[in-house]
Amino acid sequence: MAKPKVLILMGSDSDLKTVEEAAKFLKEAGVDFTMDISSAHRNPEKTVEYAKKAREEGFEVIIAAAGMAAHLPGVLASHTTLPVIGIPMSGGALGGVDAVLSILQMPKGIPVATVGIDAARNAGILACQILSIKYEEVRIKLEGMKASIRKENDEKSARIRNYLQD
Amino acid sequence: MAKPKVLILMGSDSDLKTVEEAAKFLKEAGVDFTMDISSAHRNPEKTVEYAKKAREEGFEVIIAAAGMAAHLPGVLASHTTLPVIGIPMSGGALGGVDAVLSILQMPKGIPVATVGIDAARNAGILACQILSIKYEEVRIKLEGMKASIRKENDEKSARIRNYLQD
Amino acid sequence: MAKPKVLILMGSDSDLKTVEEAAKFLKEAGVDFTMDISSAHRNPEKTVEYAKKAREEGFEVIIAAAGMAAHLPGVLASHTTLPVIGIPMSGGALGGVDAVLSILQMPKGIPVATVGIDAARNAGILACQILSIKYEEVRIKLEGMKASIRKENDEKSARIRNYLQD
Amino acid sequence: MAKPKVLILMGSDSDLKTVEEAAKFLKEAGVDFTMDISSAHRNPEKTVEYAKKAREEGFEVIIAAAGMAAHLPGVLASHTTLPVIGIPMSGGALGGVDAVLSILQMPKGIPVATVGIDAARNAGILACQILSIKYEEVRIKLEGMKASIRKENDEKSARIRNYLQD
Amino acid sequence: MAKPKVLILMGSDSDLKTVEEAAKFLKEAGVDFTMDISSAHRNPEKTVEYAKKAREEGFEVIIAAAGMAAHLPGVLASHTTLPVIGIPMSGGALGGVDAVLSILQMPKGIPVATVGIDAARNAGILACQILSIKYEEVRIKLEGMKASIRKENDEKSARIRNYLQD
Amino acid sequence: MAKPKVLILMGSDSDLKTVEEAAKFLKEAGVDFTMDISSAHRNPEKTVEYAKKAREEGFEVIIAAAGMAAHLPGVLASHTTLPVIGIPMSGGALGGVDAVLSILQMPKGIPVATVGIDAARNAGILACQILSIKYEEVRIKLEGMKASIRKENDEKSARIRNYLQD
Amino acid sequence: MAKPKVLILMGSDSDLKTVEEAAKFLKEAGVDFTMDISSAHRNPEKTVEYAKKAREEGFEVIIAAAGMAAHLPGVLASHTTLPVIGIPMSGGALGGVDAVLSILQMPKGIPVATVGIDAARNAGILACQILSIKYEEVRIKLEGMKASIRKENDEKSARIRNYLQD
Amino acid sequence: MAKPKVLILMGSDSDLKTVEEAAKFLKEAGVDFTMDISSAHRNPEKTVEYAKKAREEGFEVIIAAAGMAAHLPGVLASHTTLPVIGIPMSGGALGGVDAVLSILQMPKGIPVATVGIDAARNAGILACQILSIKYEEVRIKLEGMKASIRKENDEKSARIRNYLQD
Repeated sequence: MAKPKVLILMGSDSDLKTVEEAAKFLKEAGVDFTMDISSAHRNPEKTVEYAKKAREEGFEVIIAAAGMAAHLPGVLASHTTLPVIGIPMSGGALGGVDAVLSILQMPKGIPVATVGIDAARNAGILACQILSIKYEEVRIKLEGMKASIRKENDEKSARIRNYLQD
Repeated sequence: MAKPKVLILMGSDSDLKTVEEAAKFLKEAGVDFTMDISSAHRNPEKTVEYAKKAREEGFEVIIAAAGMAAHLPGVLASHTTLPVIGIPMSGGALGGVDAVLSILQMPKGIPVATVGIDAARNAGILACQILSIKYEEVRIKLEGMKASIRKENDEKSARIRNYLQD
Repeated sequence: MAKPKVLILMGSDSDLKTVEEAAKFLKEAGVDFTMDISSAHRNPEKTVEYAKKAREEGFEVIIAAAGMAAHLPGVLASHTTLPVIGIPMSGGALGGVDAVLSILQMPKGIPVATVGIDAARNAGILACQILSIKYEEVRIKLEGMKASIRKENDEKSARIRNYLQD
Repeated sequence: MAKPKVLILMGSDSDLKTVEEAAKFLKEAGVDFTMDISSAHRNPEKTVEYAKKAREEGFEVIIAAAGMAAHLPGVLASHTTLPVIGIPMSGGALGGVDAVLSILQMPKGIPVATVGIDAARNAGILACQILSIKYEEVRIKLEGMKASIRKENDEKSARIRNYLQD
Repeated sequence: MAKPKVLILMGSDSDLKTVEEAAKFLKEAGVDFTMDISSAHRNPEKTVEYAKKAREEGFEVIIAAAGMAAHLPGVLASHTTLPVIGIPMSGGALGGVDAVLSILQMPKGIPVATVGIDAARNAGILACQILSIKYEEVRIKLEGMKASIRKENDEKSARIRNYLQD
Repeated sequence: MAKPKVLILMGSDSDLKTVEEAAKFLKEAGVDFTMDISSAHRNPEKTVEYAKKAREEGFEVIIAAAGMAAHLPGVLASHTTLPVIGIPMSGGALGGVDAVLSILQMPKGIPVATVGIDAARNAGILACQILSIKYEEVRIKLEGMKASIRKENDEKSARIRNYLQD
Repeated sequence: MAKPKVLILMGSDSDLKTVEEAAKFLKEAGVDFTMDISSAHRNPEKTVEYAKKAREEGFEVIIAAAGMAAHLPGVLASHTTLPVIGIPMSGGALGGVDAVLSILQMPKGIPVATVGIDAARNAGILACQILSIKYEEVRIKLEGMKASIRKENDEKSARIRNYLQD
Repeated sequence: MAKPKVLILMGSDSDLKTVEEAAKFLKEAGVDFTMDISSAHRNPEKTVEYAKKAREEGFEVIIAAAGMAAHLPGVLASHTTLPVIGIPMSGGALGGVDAVLSILQMPKGIPVATVGIDAARNAGILACQILSIKYEEVRIKLEGMKASIRKENDEKSARIRNYLQD
């Protein structure tokens, strides 16, 4: 059976340092990905091409990161019926509020699954949650991750419980 | 083969009039759903129960709607590895900005797929987009819907193109 | 000599009642226009087509109105080198702030000339100001309008100066 | 008679540096406390457990600090009838506005006593004000603190009154 | 043993319709209260007097409601060591955001326990939660209320679960 | 001795219904005024003329009301050394936030004394407070008004103190 | 004739570095001042005392600076009929928005003349503009200042006009 | 035939470092410009003069940059029928939101073509797009620039596509 595959696009190469967290999570979870730069505004044809061919090329989820008037996730969503996850980037003078609203407030008919500002790792996890309805091995990875998050928290507990208690 | 199934929860019965748009879209698309009220704050045990059992009871996507300090989608997401779609409701004095931030800005490890304010129909569509990676018939419905949206737009075109042109 | 010509696009037919103010101003000023509905998300191919052919079809300015995650002006701007004027619409729960940011905060290389929320008449005037650098008759119309605005203000003055002065 | 006792929880160990101001004030005031990390999202069972047992284990006030989509105070409040004080943390791209709204705008029936952004010392003082209705010694400490704040202000006065007056 | 007693102040008599929800909850819970109008700005001496004498007159919690530049809760808090609960009112052009910030963001040393916008009933509940650390009968009332909230939710569940399921 | 005199300008005649509250207060206080419409943008020469001649024509304070991109108070302030009071009007899609920032955030050297949104009566009072440093009779009026505000509050007190106390 | 005199109060000594710009301008303009720290919350009696005695002690304008839930200007205004100028300080997590709203949005009857965030020099200028209606020498100073601002601008002009013009 | 010519004005010389990006783009595109400092508030006569004479001196577009209560673009627009492009600057405590609203929300009759915060290069491009309706050589430059932006994006693509793919 083919491995699950995710398409990760970003509007600018300055987003890479943040967006790679999504790619790294997919890698940990054994999910393939193609990652590329494709600005909705500076390279619109390439962007449309990616969206239109995504399903037939075997992608099952698209992750798109963009800042400011962040149109990339919405433009992709208008050309595909695959789920599109949008990551609003915090760059620019408004701390990412512009990107949140440009991605979140899509019109009726064309949703984008928006995650928090700069939340690339969460975008990777959400992609895996989506894949987990079809790929048993991804579900198992996610449950392992959830357990290890809990464990990590528990380990910090001892130090904090003793702190300032003399 | 079993039909796909979605769990729809809302924080208050006053949300029903908006949230039913999600249910109606699922129905059009031939997707089963269970819809219930389960407040994260007023009925926390029931909420946790729903999240924990969702996967084993055959749900593949969860849609959760809540307003103000909207914790319902996040609380559900903390107890499951299924994808959770959050709908921020516009009720209250702040027009839904409080709900957007309470749902969107989840911590690392626990994403919620947030849609626009009151965007219940889009939540239903997003749920179907997720299901479409597994269920061929859902994909076909989505593509039909996309075509009919385009057609509807085209039909309005003639009237507007003639308007004020005497 | 050919008459100047403006392309007016809107994302939804519910915008018409506001957007027609732009068309009416153009008409007063003797400028031709084509007005149509063309959603960036619901009808993306048509939108791209309009932008790509605008210049060769003789349009010299594009006016685009959209609300919420308002991508229409930006998508048009990415496919043309004509000046694009964006009108953020006030519809939705956030009073148009989402539309302002989605239109205004365009990335380097692809500007949109943004006017105020619902400011369709101002969009029409701005289009004429742009045309006025080339068409003497448009400049004359604009100066007439500016004078009549001043006169209208002066006429209201007498009433207000007497008010509460007994 | 048993000493008064406060439970202090935080969503992340990165909050400790701020939250310890609450603990330090309690210590100055002779109030016992248990401080721990317990994320509403990453460790939900532990969080619920803390809330449910808080009263029977002798806690009389709960202080909970969290950032972004800050659900910790609200989740605790949904499982106890003890007063819960929420501290919105300023971490993340939005400077704490997200945390304020996620904590403050609780639904009818489940209040959280919200203090200012990062205002951990004020949370400690508020906890003591609550305890002061029962514990005479805490009331006395608070009044001493209020007097010393006034005195501190008075001492700065002389320097400022002379400043720039040559 | 004396009954617990709460002081409820509001900045304007137009707040009464909202603020009475706090009084009504206290009444249900068997808690006495004095309710009065006392603007921090229009009647400052009376306001200070109330705060200074509150503890000696047997009040154990103060609830203060105000809108816009809402100073009442903070002014009271500066003259007492009793816990002060602030209710930001939604009146005015900004929907209560001004009141939230004017109440919440108190300086170090003088906290106000802020509840949600117009959340008078929650202010009454929070007052009772505070009193519950001292008055067993108030704690019992609160737990009864929590159970009845849950029951009310459960009763709505049946209707919603059947809705749209034909 | 000449009576004190205030200049009241507004950007649009739709502001009159709000702005007249300033004029009415001045009238009660025995202060003369000239009230007129003079838009900073639609009638700039008239506006500049008013500002430049205000002092020599015997005005001692200027009140200016405007909405949206509210430039009127600032433009007046740039042409006079008289104190200019700015009233941000709530008209338009943003509830007056745009007007507040356009009036308040003036550059170094050119202050505007900003009052609250739509706060025309307060603008009238502030004008009188300014005049009161020179005109004894205005000071006396202001003190009378302050006393009557207090009295009005006291009269409401009895009704509220009895409310819900059966 | 006595020199004009201004009272400058600030809520915290950390405000001094900003607030001294007001004092320095007054000094340049030959206006006397008393500057002191007097927190509305930490030292309320002293604050009230200052406001009540300000006029009889010969002050003609009050300048008050405070941050966050900035009550100082409003508390002073409630105890005097002198004009009170409020300076919102930018300290804290919200960049001064909280201080702006806490100072600007005063209730009917008690205005505060608000200047921009951290705009202490503008507060000094506004105080002088107020004094200028009574003190001829202050008016002359202000006009000199206005001329020198213009001159300073003109001198920068030459450099900028040549810039990038080779 | 005369070369096209643009007038660039800024409110403060501290804006130069940002604004010069507009000038540089014009230079690349072979467009002449005059750049100067001319504050709407500190040098109002000079500002009005520039606006009134701009068209007769051969300017065809005006670019104006200002921060905070940014009146410069609007003041210029009120005195000319040329298109005015406004650049909101990010300086000050509010990150440029004040400047955006002061420039964007112009009243009916007097539009300003607003670009994003600090978006000086985009202002230069927009000026050229306007000029391109008249000057063939400017249109050619713009199309060249659009192609080179696309090419630049494509070159980054290879690196990103290989990243993390071992």
